Amino acid sequence: MTDPLVIFTPSGKRGRVPAGTSVLAAARKLGVDLDSVCGGRGICSKCQVSPGFGEFSKHGVSVAEDALTGWNEVEARYDRVRGLKEGRRLGCQACIVKDVVIDVPPESQVHKQVIRKSADTRAIEMDPATRLYLVEVEEPDMHAPTGDLERLKVSLEKSWEIKGLQIDPDLLPQLQPALRKGNWQVTCAVHDAGHGPRLLSLWPGFHEGPLHGLAIDLGSTTIAAHLCDLESGAVLASSGVMNPQIRFGEDLMSRVSYAMMNPGGAAEMTAAVRAALADLARACAAEASVEPASIFEVTLVCNPVMHHLALGIDPVELGQAPFALAMSDALDLPAATLLPGAIHPQARAFVLPCIAGHVGADAAAVALSEAPHRSDDLALVVDVGTNAEILLGDKRRVLACSSPTGPAFEGAQISSGQRAAPGAIERIEIDPETREPRFKVIGCELWNTEEGFDLATATTGVTGICGSGIIEAVAEMRMAGLLDRSGLIGSAEATGSPRITPQGRTYEYLIHDGTAEGGPRITVTQGDIRAIQLAKSALYAGARLLMDELGVDTVDRIVLAGAFGAHISPKHAMVLGMIPDAPLGKVASAGNAAGTGARIALLNRAARAEVQQIVREITKVETAIEPRFQEHFVAANGIPHASDPFPELGRIAPLPEPSFNTGGGGEAGARRRRRRG
Amino acid sequence: MTDPLVIFTPSGKRGRVPAGTSVLAAARKLGVDLDSVCGGRGICSKCQVSPGFGEFSKHGVSVAEDALTGWNEVEARYDRVRGLKEGRRLGCQACIVKDVVIDVPPESQVHKQVIRKSADTRAIEMDPATRLYLVEVEEPDMHAPTGDLERLKVSLEKSWEIKGLQIDPDLLPQLQPALRKGNWQVTCAVHDAGHGPRLLSLWPGFHEGPLHGLAIDLGSTTIAAHLCDLESGAVLASSGVMNPQIRFGEDLMSRVSYAMMNPGGAAEMTAAVRAALADLARACAAEASVEPASIFEVTLVCNPVMHHLALGIDPVELGQAPFALAMSDALDLPAATLLPGAIHPQARAFVLPCIAGHVGADAAAVALSEAPHRSDDLALVVDVGTNAEILLGDKRRVLACSSPTGPAFEGAQISSGQRAAPGAIERIEIDPETREPRFKVIGCELWNTEEGFDLATATTGVTGICGSGIIEAVAEMRMAGLLDRSGLIGSAEATGSPRITPQGRTYEYLIHDGTAEGGPRITVTQGDIRAIQLAKSALYAGARLLMDELGVDTVDRIVLAGAFGAHISPKHAMVLGMIPDAPLGKVASAGNAAGTGARIALLNRAARAEVQQIVREITKVETAIEPRFQEHFVAANGIPHASDPFPELGRIAPLPEPSFNTGGGGEAGARRRRRRG
Repeated sequence: MTDPLVIFTPSGKRGRVPAGTSVLAAARKLGVDLDSVCGGRGICSKCQVSPGFGEFSKHGVSVAEDALTGWNEVEARYDRVRGLKEGRRLGCQACIVKDVVIDVPPESQVHKQVIRKSADTRAIEMDPATRLYLVEVEEPDMHAPTGDLERLKVSLEKSWEIKGLQIDPDLLPQLQPALRKGNWQVTCAVHDAGHGPRLLSLWPGFHEGPLHGLAIDLGSTTIAAHLCDLESGAVLASSGVMNPQIRFGEDLMSRVSYAMMNPGGAAEMTAAVRAALADLARACAAEASVEPASIFEVTLVCNPVMHHLALGIDPVELGQAPFALAMSDALDLPAATLLPGAIHPQARAFVLPCIAGHVGADAAAVALSEAPHRSDDLALVVDVGTNAEILLGDKRRVLACSSPTGPAFEGAQISSGQRAAPGAIERIEIDPETREPRFKVIGCELWNTEEGFDLATATTGVTGICGSGIIEAVAEMRMAGLLDRSGLIGSAEATGSPRITPQGRTYEYLIHDGTAEGGPRITVTQGDIRAIQLAKSALYAGARLLMDELGVDTVDRIVLAGAFGAHISPKHAMVLGMIPDAPLGKVASAGNAAGTGARIALLNRAARAEVQQIVREITKVETAIEPRFQEHFVAANGIPHASDPFPELGRIAPLPEPSFNTGGGGEAGARRRRRRG
Repeated sequence: MTDPLVIFTPSGKRGRVPAGTSVLAAARKLGVDLDSVCGGRGICSKCQVSPGFGEFSKHGVSVAEDALTGWNEVEARYDRVRGLKEGRRLGCQACIVKDVVIDVPPESQVHKQVIRKSADTRAIEMDPATRLYLVEVEEPDMHAPTGDLERLKVSLEKSWEIKGLQIDPDLLPQLQPALRKGNWQVTCAVHDAGHGPRLLSLWPGFHEGPLHGLAIDLGSTTIAAHLCDLESGAVLASSGVMNPQIRFGEDLMSRVSYAMMNPGGAAEMTAAVRAALADLARACAAEASVEPASIFEVTLVCNPVMHHLALGIDPVELGQAPFALAMSDALDLPAATLLPGAIHPQARAFVLPCIAGHVGADAAAVALSEAPHRSDDLALVVDVGTNAEILLGDKRRVLACSSPTGPAFEGAQISSGQRAAPGAIERIEIDPETREPRFKVIGCELWNTEEGFDLATATTGVTGICGSGIIEAVAEMRMAGLLDRSGLIGSAEATGSPRITPQGRTYEYLIHDGTAEGGPRITVTQGDIRAIQLAKSALYAGARLLMDELGVDTVDRIVLAGAFGAHISPKHAMVLGMIPDAPLGKVASAGNAAGTGARIALLNRAARAEVQQIVREITKVETAIEPRFQEHFVAANGIPHASDPFPELGRIAPLPEPSFNTGGGGEAGARRRRRRG
């Protein structure tokens, strides 16, 4: 008699197995991804499957009702005690008798895919470094007096092919009580991220989990974390806190200075950030209602200065050429070092590699998430922040640099600038005919010209302009002819707009006058324009430098990454000349790509190897020592640019070309005044 | 022209090298053991050699005065600044021009041999796990922005073939300052004990060392340690302290009970012993006038209960069958766990493997030191203590067991017993004619019958009998006919000795009456004899059990190990029947063999692998469950034995065979009295 045929879906894997083979054993034999923690003891229920019955013309089989053995005692008890969903069987108990089609539902797959919100981004395949294994350990024998640990190792090797288990001496005291309490069965949490398996925890008998992991994006200003289920990949909580290092300096270089000027300053900042990471872990655990001790994995992405401070390394070398990193490679270390007392004491942390002294693990995480190295077309990925990280490349080659954009895009150094918070203007339109503005503020869906706006914003007021707002304001002023290509604001006479008023020898444009209600007078000054020009020139010059290096004049698509990048209007960014000219439909936002990269590395071991490979292969370009960077920077001062054509932009937003340069000292005078200020 | 011939002594390795080859390069090419820390930079002077000139008929060469190049600037500067011994050259600077004979002095050999006191023991070949390496690291380059650590790794691999260096995150902060202070040269202490190289410390520029290691024998009663130079192998200090766990229980089982009865008791004992280990390390460092932070290696040997307590494991399972060890294999762990705060924070500890639940790492260390597995003849190795560890075997097979001798050999449970200390009787002779005793006490070389004894012992007095003294006392009483084979003391009438007086229904023998001077009356009672009989029977039964297992009736040689074993008189031990009959010349003492084993493992990496191999291959025999052990134990109660012949003993010390068993209730009555007491 022919052996029965078994067909697994969705994999489509098929083969014949001897009658009486369990579904789990058949899956293993055929290389089908079917989970099991208890190793076939009918305890964990991770191997649940849905057998299909009847005609399967697609597969050319007909499945009889008795294709599998009926419920045995183990399966019946499981159903009685824990409940088995309609139509489900335990793969380790149900045995194949006749031809059968077996569906493996996603939750029974180890390497299930985690669906990400955006359809055009890669899915995350689950392959976490830490997994649970139930083992039965031989009882001690006076005639073969090996230790309990040694017998546990033998079982792990025999049942799960886990060889050379490492164990922290701190865990040794727990071993004997757990084995005896579990009647020689224990569940082990074993971590293996490519440096050999390591025991992280053990529980008497069967322990269901779940295990959790924390993906952390440690930014200069904010620290964000996602708490994930290490089996399903689900994000159970997301939380963010301000980086407490802000009290030592708003930006990175002022923190480096603090470390240089104050003995013990670096250590002080290290302690502050580690305490914040620990608080964040606790906050995430509380939000998800899970035990902090169930967090066994942490991944960390951050810029080089934060990277060094988190690791307890004085960042002083990053403050001066040649910007030498103490270490650049990825790091696998005890997480308790980074998040003292907040998670499982044996938890492991994976710190992504840094690309260069100015291009950190955050940029590496963006590369992992946005994957320019897998792209068929040439992608420019820009992570906008105080420092912009820029990646350019495709399957063949990827380049990276960072560019010192300064804090203007975050609303700092802007006269009416503010952080993105309720009441901040985030969107602006200026009518090209009337040159009158309308705007929206954060926390209200209405334009200020619409009915109900005043009521809706009564509590927040209109308080200033945030980063995305100032980008739109400058771009709109340019489109409305209030601003010429050089960035000069025209006078009321030259523009015909009564909203323009002199401010010394230059002009400013009034967006909103709230003084009657005790609010601020919100304007865009010539100084604001100059600050934005500096920032956007740096960004553009960085991108251009990489394009030069690659010998191209255009890119196929642009990704704006970063929490801030997600709020930028692609059209306005292009009018401003922040990014190179490209078809508008090819400019996309990726949200917090660095955080996503951290999450990918958290859930998938191969991604950890991949990000290290990406970083090794990336061509690093150092903007600080590249003379062409200065040239590009100066040329990029124009809005959108002094010389580069923007044909795609021209198609969607033809720009007027006034000239407000009166040849006088107006602007120079303004500049002198700023220097005195 | 033929290349010059170079002959190295003492290895005898020879070969031709191109003229101009440095002596160090020639040594490496020919596989000659010549040390170097600086890699040939003329800094470390570890490669010093003594070239020989003139006729070497043995080697068939004649060495001209100009066989080597003259001093270059590097060598001249070294001599000027640090001084080079007469006739010595730096092997990395002196180059071979003509045929030459080069002697490598012991201090220039990496694998030099450490001479041990006893000529018949194996020498220790130096091959420590931690060594120093000077490397030159490439300066950072903005165009190839790898981290300083990554470039250090490249240098270590290029210069020293050290691949895959591991580094503790705690060391990262030191890296950049050290590299810059050393002008891109650093000396690394790298540990490699077979689990891959690991950076333990680094210093700017050239660091000479020395590095130190600590070999610890952690006993139930005392803790002994040797501080060794990891380059020369020299013992710089030896120190011992009482095990502070004594306050939780004198013997091991009472400590196990303490752990069982008192919640947190095990942790309390762990903290106590770790603090003592730390104190001991500091004491050794102080004695040798070295920095505690120069201690980079620790090896630890101990019995299973101390092993578990030192590692923080509750020893409760060792107190009951099946005596399950939590772990038996050797352990490589951070030494700071075991000796908190006393040594270099990155120091590594190697804990030798346990053989079985009653046969610990101390027995494994004895096996390593006394090497029965390398013996051509059949060796019985006995480590005498509260528990005796017994090894029996030769090249073909080694067996091990432990036997519960109890504390009698240490002077406990003996009426006049005391610890070995000044004033304790350690040697006794009883005249077979007069049956009068003479004795020596610890701290005085004179017999008590010699002139000057009273004066010499005026300060200490005569205070009691120590372990070796009681063994001699019982054996001498047997030889003098005061004691029959069954262990009964004869009456004054039966023996004709007025020193025998009744004590209840049994008798005691007076050794020394110090009551006139306010001192004790020191006697050997029937109870003392019984206690010694129990102890020696256990020892003998264990040895016999192993002999049965091996199918032999005699052994070729016997080694008495342990601090106490070193003081036992072989003849008396044999009269007592502690050990099997053997030619007296074949009974040797090995001193603290466990401590020596710890020292071997400290200095030689291969020995660490060897001891693990030995332990794996040893046949473990558990006395507690072996019925024949009881039979042997009962038969061994006789002095020397109820039935086994002692032909060798008979040749040197024919024993009288009185019989003092009067058939009455004397002894039984005594036993009843003891039970009531």
